Amino acid sequence: MNGTNRTRIILNRGEERRIRGGHPWVFSNEIRDIQGERLPGITADIFDTGGGFLGTGYYNPRSLIAARLLTRERADIDNRDFFLERIGRALALRRQLYPGMETFRLVHGEGDFLPGLVIDKYGEWLSIQLLTAGMDARRELIVATLTELLAPRGIVARNDVAVRSLEGLVEEVEVLAGETPGELEIEEHGLRFRVDIMGGQKTGHFLDQKENHLLLKGISEGKRVLDCFSYSGSWGIHAAAFGAAETLCLDVSERAAALVMANARLNGLGDRVRAEVCDAFERLASLRHEGRRFGVVVLDPPAFVKSKKALKEAEKGYLTVNRRGMELLEEGGYLITCSCSYHMGREPLRELLAQAARQAGRHMRVVGVRSQAPDHPVLLAVPETEYLKCFILQAV
Amino acid sequence: MNGTNRTRIILNRGEERRIRGGHPWVFSNEIRDIQGERLPGITADIFDTGGGFLGTGYYNPRSLIAARLLTRERADIDNRDFFLERIGRALALRRQLYPGMETFRLVHGEGDFLPGLVIDKYGEWLSIQLLTAGMDARRELIVATLTELLAPRGIVARNDVAVRSLEGLVEEVEVLAGETPGELEIEEHGLRFRVDIMGGQKTGHFLDQKENHLLLKGISEGKRVLDCFSYSGSWGIHAAAFGAAETLCLDVSERAAALVMANARLNGLGDRVRAEVCDAFERLASLRHEGRRFGVVVLDPPAFVKSKKALKEAEKGYLTVNRRGMELLEEGGYLITCSCSYHMGREPLRELLAQAARQAGRHMRVVGVRSQAPDHPVLLAVPETEYLKCFILQAV
Repeated sequence: MNGTNRTRIILNRGEERRIRGGHPWVFSNEIRDIQGERLPGITADIFDTGGGFLGTGYYNPRSLIAARLLTRERADIDNRDFFLERIGRALALRRQLYPGMETFRLVHGEGDFLPGLVIDKYGEWLSIQLLTAGMDARRELIVATLTELLAPRGIVARNDVAVRSLEGLVEEVEVLAGETPGELEIEEHGLRFRVDIMGGQKTGHFLDQKENHLLLKGISEGKRVLDCFSYSGSWGIHAAAFGAAETLCLDVSERAAALVMANARLNGLGDRVRAEVCDAFERLASLRHEGRRFGVVVLDPPAFVKSKKALKEAEKGYLTVNRRGMELLEEGGYLITCSCSYHMGREPLRELLAQAARQAGRHMRVVGVRSQAPDHPVLLAVPETEYLKCFILQAV
Repeated sequence: MNGTNRTRIILNRGEERRIRGGHPWVFSNEIRDIQGERLPGITADIFDTGGGFLGTGYYNPRSLIAARLLTRERADIDNRDFFLERIGRALALRRQLYPGMETFRLVHGEGDFLPGLVIDKYGEWLSIQLLTAGMDARRELIVATLTELLAPRGIVARNDVAVRSLEGLVEEVEVLAGETPGELEIEEHGLRFRVDIMGGQKTGHFLDQKENHLLLKGISEGKRVLDCFSYSGSWGIHAAAFGAAETLCLDVSERAAALVMANARLNGLGDRVRAEVCDAFERLASLRHEGRRFGVVVLDPPAFVKSKKALKEAEKGYLTVNRRGMELLEEGGYLITCSCSYHMGREPLRELLAQAARQAGRHMRVVGVRSQAPDHPVLLAVPETEYLKCFILQAV
């Protein structure tokens, strides 16, 4: 694309403030005028009302987030040098965070100044998500850059995510380059996990809880541990490795439960981990009626809140599941409870947990509050980059 | 005091809700009736409007927080067994948190179900604060309990705190038992620190940042580090120990600056630590004009906000100091910025930091958010038990 003929987006008066503050999004109702082509994903220069240059990004006429900025400079974002610099910078941060490690989130969208792009590195394989028309249009550039930087054995696009429909994109899973291993194996804290890169949840594994899994150390030993919404069992298997007497993993998916047991056996923990295929909400209630109690309960549910609208309903879900989790705790027991919904803020979640404790009749100490792993960078100016909340509570 | 003649406090309709939820405070305007004696600090049983028993605590007619609950049971809070159990439980938590360590916060008021009582243990000495009339009235019980549990060489009361005036108590420093060492020495992460137990800030040392000091590891090496509002230099000396090329500590107090240098020499770091007696606000500005830049800037100011009323003014202070701190960062440099004011909430502080970054023209990544050390327990039902916020930001 030629710089002189590039699409120009001019904002309404005052709408440049958030963008000048470092936020990369332009909403469709903030735009006064668009000059030039309007194809989904096209490169666009963004200006304030007075003609002041704000930066360059990509445009999508179909999206409520009409444009996302990639740079504050007059740069060409449609060549490999740009992506080499950006992804190279993201890689350098991970090399610094995790020296010697080959499994991490390499690119975390807005948090790495690459809005709409997610890249997880599982050893020699990459699992990526192109979440916007702008990134989807640049898939060849991205694949070429990744090949040059990392020479992966395969690049899989896990584009089977609902947000793509907001951008007018289809949901699909594709192999973009090389081969696909189907299932592969990664290491976390010396433990081995099978990752279903083509069919597993999200990109195949949840790298965002990596450091949080260590919270189980020291509190799991000799205890009964309950891992709800366990998926492939990363919490439960950590607990077993940290000496839990028995670990029960609950997940509604048979495939997840099979992965849990495969992972348990892989780590020689098959005799101390059990997986049940069930609705965790209902099972939490029935465990209580059976008189079962646990030294540690982990609640790491999928995002109940996919949008602001669904918040009220989701809050009920969080309240119920947390109340039931607290009711299952032994005296002195720990609850590790998470929300990965951006729309469920930290303070509202805290208040909701306090309410759950009142309803459960438990006094809870806040042992700690955590967020996502540092390879999921958070920008001060972009609150949306932080989505994970993890509270560690103790019944006292 | 005799159970049958104890003071009875009956609350207005509905005011029991927060208390039943686990909060220990009764505000004066929530009280319908008081039966019996009304002496400051007197034991009182608390009831809801319908006569339902809520718990036992102490009463103070002079305080806006008219009563604080110590137990939800019909217990005698005026004997040594009660304090032995409570302080013993608090001690057990610290033994579990810090095996082998002899310096920690032993009792953190409401967070340890002992409202109004703070006890810091510095090896063989104890530095305590009796913040309410209820605790002040029980000082002999507390001293006897501590003597029985820990046989300290000395117990100092650092009652020179303004909150005592809200309870109608005088501000003073006393030796309650044994001897006073004047200055003593403690260890933190293998480093030695002099503690001025009779005249230093608060109880003599800030134990609440203990784990947070480790944030300097890995980011200080070879860097210039600026420690603002340094007091005795615990941030700066950690930075120097973690390999900082040079460390500059700023504090308005000559005594603090002398302590910084004593502590630096004590750890063989005298050649890499410098202390300046100055107003940190002004010095931050002048350092910028001198063209000085730092790889790490630490901002750990005293509580700018002592009350809700003073919040607006304090926010300006936080904004200025953070903007100036950000302006001094090298590319890739880190800002560790704290607030120990309960009234300055975490989210408002985050927004204020984003504003400071906009004003400073810096993009900042949120590397982490921390709170107070775990020997300052936080209760889910008592938001007031959490006061410390610590953001680690990186200029990107």
